[in-house]
Amino acid sequence: MRVLLTGGAGYIGAHTALALLEAGHDVLVVDDLSGTSAEAVARIERITGETVPLLVADVRDADALTDFVREHAPVQAVIHLAGLKAVGESVAEPVRYYDVNVGTTIALLKVMAAQGIPTIVFSSSATVYGTPEELPLTEESPTGIDLANPYGKTKRIIEEILSDAAAADPALRAVSLRYFNPVGAHASGLLGEDPHGIPNNLMPFVSRVAIGTLPEVAVFGTDYDTPDGTGLRDYIHVTDLAAGHVAALEHAQPGYDVFNLGTGTPVSVLELIAAFERASGRDIPRRIAPRRAGDVAASYADPAKAHRELGWSTRLTIDDACRDYWNWQTNNPDGYARA
Amino acid sequence: MRVLLTGGAGYIGAHTALALLEAGHDVLVVDDLSGTSAEAVARIERITGETVPLLVADVRDADALTDFVREHAPVQAVIHLAGLKAVGESVAEPVRYYDVNVGTTIALLKVMAAQGIPTIVFSSSATVYGTPEELPLTEESPTGIDLANPYGKTKRIIEEILSDAAAADPALRAVSLRYFNPVGAHASGLLGEDPHGIPNNLMPFVSRVAIGTLPEVAVFGTDYDTPDGTGLRDYIHVTDLAAGHVAALEHAQPGYDVFNLGTGTPVSVLELIAAFERASGRDIPRRIAPRRAGDVAASYADPAKAHRELGWSTRLTIDDACRDYWNWQTNNPDGYARA
Repeated sequence: MRVLLTGGAGYIGAHTALALLEAGHDVLVVDDLSGTSAEAVARIERITGETVPLLVADVRDADALTDFVREHAPVQAVIHLAGLKAVGESVAEPVRYYDVNVGTTIALLKVMAAQGIPTIVFSSSATVYGTPEELPLTEESPTGIDLANPYGKTKRIIEEILSDAAAADPALRAVSLRYFNPVGAHASGLLGEDPHGIPNNLMPFVSRVAIGTLPEVAVFGTDYDTPDGTGLRDYIHVTDLAAGHVAALEHAQPGYDVFNLGTGTPVSVLELIAAFERASGRDIPRRIAPRRAGDVAASYADPAKAHRELGWSTRLTIDDACRDYWNWQTNNPDGYARA
Repeated sequence: MRVLLTGGAGYIGAHTALALLEAGHDVLVVDDLSGTSAEAVARIERITGETVPLLVADVRDADALTDFVREHAPVQAVIHLAGLKAVGESVAEPVRYYDVNVGTTIALLKVMAAQGIPTIVFSSSATVYGTPEELPLTEESPTGIDLANPYGKTKRIIEEILSDAAAADPALRAVSLRYFNPVGAHASGLLGEDPHGIPNNLMPFVSRVAIGTLPEVAVFGTDYDTPDGTGLRDYIHVTDLAAGHVAALEHAQPGYDVFNLGTGTPVSVLELIAAFERASGRDIPRRIAPRRAGDVAASYADPAKAHRELGWSTRLTIDDACRDYWNWQTNNPDGYARA
């Protein structure tokens, strides 16, 4: 298939582009390079020897996107990863989050309809489950419960739009992938997460502490009802996550469907820090801090539906993720910036 | 106050414009005249002797809207009624509904922020309650339960956006008004509902049967658990509804708030038809038909919060509404078209 990948220069996007190419698909990327780097796409070309056309544009620029899709016709599917993703920022700037995330998806669906592209795989998030009522989370678990931030709401809204769009258009194949916590980097050390400023997520933060550019990691809450008192999450290696996109694309059926992409194995904050210490051989100073508003004690997937229906499962562990992240970090101390 | 009224040439918009002018406010209208008529605005000017500047544009045309607002500075508030409103159409064309309704609101909020306009009153709908778990519906009743159509989802999404925007911006005053079933027309016979094609709502349909342009009205379901077996709704005279907008505007406080605008009195389909027969002096043929998917047995407001906090209550009855609608219909058999 020839696949348009929105946000394809980003962390998950770059790994997904590589996985698509390795599976024999053609890839086009549209990315506005806000917070991402064209170097990621250049490296994918270097790794694979393939050409990856890159349109530097906002997905809402319908004319540019239409021209790009026509130039590379026939495009048979879209994997839609473009969007804003910082939870805290979404609370401070909600209108921008609704504007960019919801508006981008609507613009994309209009271009797809006009150009006859029938398939979309969307990067949703386990955030849509809000505060879990039951664990592990299945795709049948209720969504939207006490959703505390606009970021998560945009994911839930986009899922609704895709579901309604598929109900109205019998040719549309729409799949939402609910990511748990993506971590790790490509085993080559050439692709990885490149957060600007202070990282929002735990592994990038821990890695910067390990390498010495941040002094210590805060552990937010040690009094949760979990084995070691710290929060439990489902950390999925980005290479496994990328493979999930390929599987979802290849299995997409007319209608709307949703899959959890997670390992099913909860890992605590302290366990992740310990794993990163093993992988890096460094001590990682930590500081106990109060719980953060909006954090839940535990969130992890039941990935059985994806196993059963997509023939996909995770292969890599938290130790693999820490090893690969550290390899990326040490080979690219400034991310893609000094490539 | 000087108020920008989006959708001000529409049914509720025209009555709201008139109510604002009668309360001593200035009014500017932006309306793309899709499904509405500039004649409504011309008649408001004729009734009041005031000038009502009209910008014929899509609210998403940020440049045009910004110029319009600047030209008439200072604009102190927005009443936002522009949007698509046909439930059935929203199921068939969901992407268009999300695009127009959500996109319009986001575009408007951006212009408001840029121009320093602190207040927005939004036309939400009792549709956001979905299938009621309790009656009457209070503002605390759960929303979003089994919401069957994208129209209702756009209203709920816009309420969330306004709530999040107000949480992020302490200066913002945002109010959602959850309309029950607007009916009637202005007592002058000069303003009224002007649906194109076959009306979606009951009173316009009944009125066209009474005047003879439609043969009969279908009564969808006579086996509901209601006194006469037909559905119960809360029909609010559009003049009362318009007054609710003025009250909400004048009472808007920093933050986000929501009010039901309804009478609190349930009226059945058969009662409405009987009232229209009395008002028109015509027999109204009706045909019993099966329940429609998505219809609920009963929906009516507890309007106590608006009584208490806005000092607003309805003054007009279903008989007033039928009389005024019939007066409008007979004086304007083709709506505004042959004005």
